[in-house]
Order: sequence, then structure tokens, then C-alpha cells
Amino acid sequence: MARVVQKYGGTAVTTPEQIKKVAQRIIDSYNDNNDVVVVISAKAGETNRLIEMAHETCPGQEGCEYDLLISAGEQVSVGLLALCITSMGYTARPYLGWQVPIITDSCHSKASIETIDPTKINRDLKLGAIVIVAGFQGIDRDGSITTLGRGGGDASAVALAHVLEAEQCEIYSDVDGIFSADPDICSNAHKIEKISYDEMLELASQGARGVQIRAIEYAKKHNVTIHVRSSFSTASGTLVTREDSTMEGVLVTGIVSDKNEAKIAVLGIPDKPGTAAKILTALADTDISVDMIVQNVSQAGLADLTFSVSKSDLDKATLITEKIATELQAREVIADKNISKVSIVGLGMRNHAGVAARMFTVLAYNNINIQMISTSEIKVSVAIHEDYTELAVRVLHEAFRTS
Amino acid sequence: MARVVQKYGGTAVTTPEQIKKVAQRIIDSYNDNNDVVVVISAKAGETNRLIEMAHETCPGQEGCEYDLLISAGEQVSVGLLALCITSMGYTARPYLGWQVPIITDSCHSKASIETIDPTKINRDLKLGAIVIVAGFQGIDRDGSITTLGRGGGDASAVALAHVLEAEQCEIYSDVDGIFSADPDICSNAHKIEKISYDEMLELASQGARGVQIRAIEYAKKHNVTIHVRSSFSTASGTLVTREDSTMEGVLVTGIVSDKNEAKIAVLGIPDKPGTAAKILTALADTDISVDMIVQNVSQAGLADLTFSVSKSDLDKATLITEKIATELQAREVIADKNISKVSIVGLGMRNHAGVAARMFTVLAYNNINIQMISTSEIKVSVAIHEDYTELAVRVLHEAFRTS
Repeated sequence: MARVVQKYGGTAVTTPEQIKKVAQRIIDSYNDNNDVVVVISAKAGETNRLIEMAHETCPGQEGCEYDLLISAGEQVSVGLLALCITSMGYTARPYLGWQVPIITDSCHSKASIETIDPTKINRDLKLGAIVIVAGFQGIDRDGSITTLGRGGGDASAVALAHVLEAEQCEIYSDVDGIFSADPDICSNAHKIEKISYDEMLELASQGARGVQIRAIEYAKKHNVTIHVRSSFSTASGTLVTREDSTMEGVLVTGIVSDKNEAKIAVLGIPDKPGTAAKILTALADTDISVDMIVQNVSQAGLADLTFSVSKSDLDKATLITEKIATELQAREVIADKNISKVSIVGLGMRNHAGVAARMFTVLAYNNINIQMISTSEIKVSVAIHEDYTELAVRVLHEAFRTS
Repeated sequence: MARVVQKYGGTAVTTPEQIKKVAQRIIDSYNDNNDVVVVISAKAGETNRLIEMAHETCPGQEGCEYDLLISAGEQVSVGLLALCITSMGYTARPYLGWQVPIITDSCHSKASIETIDPTKINRDLKLGAIVIVAGFQGIDRDGSITTLGRGGGDASAVALAHVLEAEQCEIYSDVDGIFSADPDICSNAHKIEKISYDEMLELASQGARGVQIRAIEYAKKHNVTIHVRSSFSTASGTLVTREDSTMEGVLVTGIVSDKNEAKIAVLGIPDKPGTAAKILTALADTDISVDMIVQNVSQAGLADLTFSVSKSDLDKATLITEKIATELQAREVIADKNISKVSIVGLGMRNHAGVAARMFTVLAYNNINIQMISTSEIKVSVAIHEDYTELAVRVLHEAFRTS
């Protein structure tokens, strides 16, 4: 008898038919002699609907009232799923975050889980019940409802799997698993059977779907095995797990592209210490995150600073940058929406020099110009013109797939 | 400085504009130097939407999952209203039922309030906050969310007014108060300034809108003054209060009609003891409530039993009645949808004989045939053909209004 936590996303519970299918899947797992704890999200679009209602009524408000409002979405899903399982003749025990309780800090709308008391859930499982828990929400030590921010449902599931000592945490969504590249771009992309936490973190950070970054970080910290799989198929997906000796044999585990970034270049800055810091601090102060950063010093004592931000932040970031650039007496600021980021990720890079060089060679050979580069121990990302995105993914996948 | 509980119904919070208006009204009351506690319902139609979702997903289920689901509607209202008040520069403290806590029994979907702990709300009021509480919901002693059934929001408000020792409990809806008759039927109907609990109970039982029966019962028991008023006007409405000496001077306080009943007649039943009980028990067993009951014994030792049920129960009730009637060897069963009930209510009846006789005379004089009669100490109801409803209300209002 194993114990499993299953997390279903909002696309799995949009219609009564889908809810019934999810209920059947849960019951099948229960009848396979498993203790089953289910974490469920609000139906797709519901949380956005609540957020929109809040914005229409009183723009710009947040805090505990806001969390109380937007946590209503999971409540509906939990109620419906529990009703459905009960109507199929099984015992379901529904829990909202505060009922478990899932204790978080008081950082409303992006709270972090501090502790989970497993007592009630363990009791219910012992009595043979299927436990349904609302994801994305908790309660702080003052008794206010909190929410964990986007993707918080995955974090709830992994944290529950940890405290309940579950064998694995299954994260169901509309993707079949993690692939060596997007199958829509590379027809010969393969599903990765097993991937390390660090690789998965890099892939998710660079745009891969299937599981949220905070959940992976939590899983890594507490060594929880995540199974990323599809709610529309019974095929197994991808295990995200502690790294083992076989993993380092693969140079590049996955290739991922992201078209959601844009580039800002500040050209001809008089080269004094602290100029980059000045621009980047101004952006950070308005909550704009910068991803890739490149600085060159040209011959005339003038520097060029180029960096990437999310496309949705581009207009705001350009305005702020132009203001500081004027103060710094820079020559000009150029904003460019037409870039994309292509990344290769693999544990094997740690022990093999020359992976980045090979990547640049392959791109150059295919006439793809590199605009920015950033690297980590197990990842190389390049910014290129977005028209070349799919080509770049294909040639890189071809170049690295047999290594 | 007074303390007041204000309850707003679902029609007051259907749009962002309405929510803003309600927020302004609450703030006005707060600025009039009142401690304000607000009880709010789900927006009109929202609870029905949730119930429908439950029925679509798994028909016929109830219990704790169901209450958890349908209590999500008030949660949204509480969150939005609290956000709105905060955005207007005031401190709002939102509470769901379990957060107060409002402790109920475990009778899911029609729970009764057992106790309310006023500690947190008293603390918030002392700190100058406006307190917003979700109506209609509570928590049982096992920690499950419960709901109080339709109209439970009014009961929440009155119970809170009691434990908080508020000066009055204002129940806002889309009616201006309680009228001597429906102003749409009698153009000269007047708003009643003050009415006793017992009269209000009778009027509400016979179909008057403005405040729910359970709330009136609770108010009577704990001597809470209810102010029934409109959320669309600042005019004062009707006070529902302990009876005083002036009230008995009025023979008939109000006249009310109800078209939601239907009649079933079982004719030619061999007259043995227990036949009426047999039919009525069968109906009660399927949760059908019977309102008026009349039994006549005819000369040939055969009895006729006539009773009224809610129109929505008529088909089901007719089937059950026909089955039992066959067993009892009754001659026939006749169902009739086309009836209405007209009632006159007044404390003064207690000390004045002949009010019923006068009612019947007035109806007869206007050629309105009476099909059934039921009376209490302060009420006379008659069932008539529904085509005569408005006529009956008008002639009775005219006959009794100067008395």
C-alpha cells in the first residue's frame, strides 16, 4: 500500500464531465490500494474572474480581503470534487487550507508555507477516506486566509507530499511530461523519463511547462519525487527527482525557448563605476525583473549595457531606463521586442567543457546571430531574433540529441 | 455612540457600482458615530449558480461538501465589500463564519446557530474598524463549514446583533418596509412604522417579504429590534419589535396574499380514524409541507379531506396522495393549481371577536367564494380562486383600514 498526493490543475475541472473523469481517476488510484490525497485548483479562469471583480470594484487593493476573495475559487472545486466522489460511493473528506491547517507567513497573495499539520489527514486516510485539499491557500498565525501566488497549487501538493511522507507527488496538467524539446517544434523530441531537480528548475525558469518553480524548489529541499503527467492520459510522464549517476552522462537533457522577453540596450554610457547598478536598481524598485545582462566597454571610454525584461514590462522599463540614461548622459536607448531566448540545460555540462562553444558553433553555422548570452553551471541561454526561434531549437536538438 | 448591525441582501451587491454604494452607506453610518457590523449575502443568483453546478456534477448530493461549496458565494461578497471599504480609506475587518466563529449544529444546509463568540469583533470595533461578516454560514463543532438554509443571512445578522448587544439590526433589501398591503395592489397601502414579532411572523409566513421567519423568531426570543428597510433609499422602514400597548388598538395590521399554494382534495374517503394522518404522514415523509387542512364528514359516512401544498410540490404530492387514496378506497383525488391564499393579520383580533366573520362577509359581498379557512390567534387565512386575489386584498384593505 502506497501513499500518493495527486494535484490537478484548473483545466482538469472546468466542466461537470471533466470533474467526473478526475473523480474516476482518483477512485482508480484508491482502488489500486493507495492512500490518496488530492490537491485541487480553481477551475481555469475562475481566479482571474475573481481578480477582475476585485479590480472593477476597487482597483489597486490587496491584502487579507483580497486573499479571502480569490481563495473562493478552490473552495468551489474542492466542494464539487468531494460531492462527486461521494456520489460514486466513496468517502471523500474535503479540506480548505485553514481546515488542514496549512500555516503560512502573512505575506498576502504570495505567502509561503511554514508548516502543515498532518494529524487530521492521517486520521482520515486511516479510516479509508479520500482526502481533497484546496491548493493555493493557507492561513496565517493571525487566522487570516492567505494565498500562495500563481502556481501555488503545485507548492501545496509538494508540501503535503512531504509532511504526509507520500511516495510521490503526481502533478497532473495538460502536458504529457517534460520533453527534450517542444514536440510541436521538434517532431523527434522525446519524453524525459527522469530529470534532476536542478535541471527541472532551469527548464521551468526558461519557460518549460508542467510544474511550477516554487514546487520544484520545495521538492528539492525535502527530496520529494514529483511525477509530471497528463490528466488526459494514463501514460506515465516525467519523474523529477534527486540526481543520480546516470544523469550526468547526458550533456543536454532539454532545450527550451521563450518568446516572452524583450531587450533594452543603453548605448554610449560614459564608463564610470555604478552606472549599470543605477539602471538596474531603478528597475528593481518598480518590481521589474531583469533576466540577461551584458555590458561591453568600447574604445572611447563609453560603455553599452544591454539587458532583457519580460515583454509585458517593456514599456514601463523603457521609460525608466530612458530617464536614468539621460541623467547618465548616455547616447541612446533602444528597445527591441523581437527577441527570444533559447536555452540548453543538462547536468552533463558540469564535467564537459565546450558545450557552450559547440552551441554557438551550431548556431553560427545556421546563420543565427547571438545577441546576448547567459550561463549557469548546467545551462546556457542565448537571446536571438525571434524569427529564428524554431530553427535554433531544431538544430540544437539535432546537434545534442545523441550526445 | 450606538452599535448597529446592518444586513445587506444579494440584490445590493450584484455590480461593482452597487457594492460601492453599499460601502458608502456603511461608511456614512460609521461617520455618524456608530459601531458598524455588516452582514452580507452572496450576490443575487450566485448561490443558485453554485447549487446548479453541484446538481450538474452529481445530482442529489448534500452534506458537508455541499455546504463547503455553496458558502463560497458570501466569501466573494465579503472580500469585495471589505476591499471597497479599505479603498475608501477606512479599516475593514472581513470575517467568514468560521473566523468569528459562528458555531452551529451539524445539520448541514439548514444548520442552526448555537453560539457566537463576540471577542474578536468587539476588539475590532474598539480599534475603530468596520466589521464585515459573511451571512448564511457557520462552522460546527467538528470544524466543518455549515450553511443555515435560505434566508440564513437574516438569522446571522439578528444573532450577531444579540451577542454584540447592538441597538438594532437593520435588514436592508429591495423593499421599503412592511406595508398594510402590497402597494402594487392597494395604492393607499401605508408603510407600518412598528409591528410586533408575532404579527411579523404571521405576515412573513403568509408571504410578506422583507425579513426571514427564522430571523424574526430569533429576534423575538432575544428581544432584538429589527429595522426592515430599503438599500436604495435612506427613508426609515418598519421596526419589528416587542409588542406594546398601542399595537392592540389596530384590528388588522396587514393583509397579504400568496399565489404559491395549490390545493389537493381527496373525496369520498370511508370515514375511519387515522385516514387524514395516513395521507399527511406520507407527505411529511417526503418532506412536503402541508399548510391549510380541512376535513368534512358527509352524510353517507364518507369524508372529504382538502389541503394545500406549495405549487412546486403539487405533482409529487398528487402522486403520493393518489397512491394512499387508492389504498383507502377513496372516490377521487382532485388537484387544483388555481388557488391563492389571502390572510389578514393583527394583534387586535385577540380581543375583538367577529374579525373573521367580518372578513367572510366582505368577501361574500364581493362574490368571492372561500374554499378553505385557517386561523390563528392573530390571523385569518382563506384560500380562494386565484383570479380574485387582488380584488380580495383591495376590499379587505378598504374594510379594515380605518378600524
